[in-house]
Amino acid sequence: MSEFDRIDDIVRELGRSATGVGVVLGPGDDAAILEIPPSHELVVSADTLIEGRHYPAGSDPELIAGRALGVSLSDLAAMGALPRFVTVSLGTETLEREWAVGFGRGLARRAREYDVAIVGGNIARGPQHIAVTVHGVVPAGTALCRSNARENDEVWVTGTIGHASIALDEPGLADLGFDDLEPGSSAMSYWNPPCRTAFGVSLREFATAAIDISDGLASDLAHIAAASRRRLSIDLETVPTSTELSAERAVVAGDDYELAFTAPPGANAAIRALAVRHDVPVTPIGRVDPGDGVAWSVGERAIEIDGGYRHF
Amino acid sequence: MSEFDRIDDIVRELGRSATGVGVVLGPGDDAAILEIPPSHELVVSADTLIEGRHYPAGSDPELIAGRALGVSLSDLAAMGALPRFVTVSLGTETLEREWAVGFGRGLARRAREYDVAIVGGNIARGPQHIAVTVHGVVPAGTALCRSNARENDEVWVTGTIGHASIALDEPGLADLGFDDLEPGSSAMSYWNPPCRTAFGVSLREFATAAIDISDGLASDLAHIAAASRRRLSIDLETVPTSTELSAERAVVAGDDYELAFTAPPGANAAIRALAVRHDVPVTPIGRVDPGDGVAWSVGERAIEIDGGYRHF
Repeated sequence: MSEFDRIDDIVRELGRSATGVGVVLGPGDDAAILEIPPSHELVVSADTLIEGRHYPAGSDPELIAGRALGVSLSDLAAMGALPRFVTVSLGTETLEREWAVGFGRGLARRAREYDVAIVGGNIARGPQHIAVTVHGVVPAGTALCRSNARENDEVWVTGTIGHASIALDEPGLADLGFDDLEPGSSAMSYWNPPCRTAFGVSLREFATAAIDISDGLASDLAHIAAASRRRLSIDLETVPTSTELSAERAVVAGDDYELAFTAPPGANAAIRALAVRHDVPVTPIGRVDPGDGVAWSVGERAIEIDGGYRHF
Repeated sequence: MSEFDRIDDIVRELGRSATGVGVVLGPGDDAAILEIPPSHELVVSADTLIEGRHYPAGSDPELIAGRALGVSLSDLAAMGALPRFVTVSLGTETLEREWAVGFGRGLARRAREYDVAIVGGNIARGPQHIAVTVHGVVPAGTALCRSNARENDEVWVTGTIGHASIALDEPGLADLGFDDLEPGSSAMSYWNPPCRTAFGVSLREFATAAIDISDGLASDLAHIAAASRRRLSIDLETVPTSTELSAERAVVAGDDYELAFTAPPGANAAIRALAVRHDVPVTPIGRVDPGDGVAWSVGERAIEIDGGYRHF
C-alpha cells in the first residue's frame, strides 16, 4: 500500500468536488492554484479535529470528514464569507482502502452541500486527526468581525444551543454511519453541523459583529464582548436551549457551530425575514451595553455562568 | 492555564510577523482577511509534521516551528509562488508557557526570513503535530507545475541531495537549539531547510516543470515524469549527493526540500546566472526523453533505483 494509492482513492471519491468555481489547478501538484474574484478579499480559517478528543475514537470516516468540514466552514459563516476552497490534512496510523473511500465520500458530500472544492491536502502517518483550512471570499471591506458590536445592538443566536452536545452523552456515537443520522437529532447536529454559510453571507448587510459558537455560547459571547469593548447583557430565559439540558449547562456546552451575532434594533424585521428565507431559526437573547464581559440574568435577577469549553 | 493565554503568548512572539503585505485582519477572529493582488492567482499547499515521525520526539519548539514552515514554504517555491500568508494548527498534549514562546519565536524567525505573515491557526489538545497551510501569489497563468516538462529539456536540482537526511543518523538531533545549528551542517538543513522561494519565483521565466524534493529525489522525479508523460533520464554520477552517503542512498533519502526542475537547454546560461544571483547551487543531472518513468544510469550503464520515502 502506498500513500499515493490512498490519495488516489480519496481524490476519486471527490469526483467533481475536487474542482469548482475559481479552481485553476486542484489536487495533485505541489500546491493548488486558485482565483479570487476581483475586488474581493480572501477569508481563511484553520481548525483541527483530534480522534478521542473532538470525536469518539473509531468513528465512521464519512462522518469524521463531514464534521471536520462543517466545523471549519462554520468559521467562514461567522465572517459572512462565501466558502470556496478547502485543504484537508489527514493524520492516521493505518489507511485501509475502505476507510479512505469513506473519508473521501464524506468530504465530497459536504463539499457538494456547501459548493466548495477540495483543492489539496496531505496524508501523514500518526495519531488520527484532520486539519482543515477553509477559504472563502467576501467583497472587500464587508467581512463580519467580532469587534464591531455597538451599544443598543440586539444579540442574536441561530439554532438551539446545547443540542449537539447531547449526542456525546448518548451511547453508540462512534458506531453510527451517515444513514443512521435522523433529521433533527442531536447526533445529526454533532456529526453534520448545519453551517449557516448562506445565512452568514446575507447577514453581512445587517449584522455588526458575529462569531461561531464552537466553545459554548457563554465563552464565545465573551469573545465578542472583549473584541468590541462592550458588555453583552443576556437573559438566559430567552436563549433557545435544548430541552434535554438545563439552560445553565446548555450555554457552556460546545459543539453547536451555530452563530451568535449583533445587529441594530432597526434590523430586527430584516433579520427575521432572512431567517425565514434561509430556514434558519434565530432568537434575540440580549443587548449590547457599555462596559465589558457578559452579564447573564434570569429575567431581572443577575446570575453567574462559568466559561465554556477549555482546550487545556 | 487556558488555550487563549497560550495563543496570546505565541501571537506576542510573532510581533510584526502576524501582519504584512495584504493582511487586512490577522490572528484573533474567526478567520483572517487577506488581499490578493489584482491579476494574480492564489497558490495554496498544506503539510503536516508529526512528532516522532517527521521530527524526533521532544525536540526544541523553535526548531519544530521553523522546520514546519520550511517544509511548507518549499512547496510554494516549487510552484514559483511568492509566499505571503501562513496558518498554523498545533496539536499538543501539554502547552507550557516556555514551549509556546519558543514555538512562536521559531514561527516569527522563519516568517521574517521569508517575508510571510502568520495570519491564524488554532491549538488543539492531542498528540503533538503541526499542520501548516501556506498561501502564495503568482501573476495569473505563470505558476510552475509538474506536468509541463518537454522533450530535450534539461533536468536540474538545487543544493546537495541527501545532506539533510544525515542529521537523522547523528545522535542528539532532538537536543539541539537554534544556536547550536552550524551553517552548512546537515542539522541546519534538517531543521531549517533553505526554501528556494526567491529562486523559485525567478525560475518561472525559464523552467517548464518543478517539484520540491521532500520524499527523495528519485520519488519526486517520478512525479514529474508521470505528470508530464515523459521519461526523465538521469545520470547518477552527475547528481550532487552528500559525501557521507552513497549516491544510491542519497537519491532516495527524504527531507531535502530542494527543488528539481526542467528547462529548455537554451535556458542553461540564464539558470546558472540566476543561481549565482540567488546564491543557490544548481546542477544539471539529466534530460527529458519520450517514454515514461525515470531511467537511471551511471554513465552509460543503466541501474535500478528503488523509490523514496513511503508514508505508509
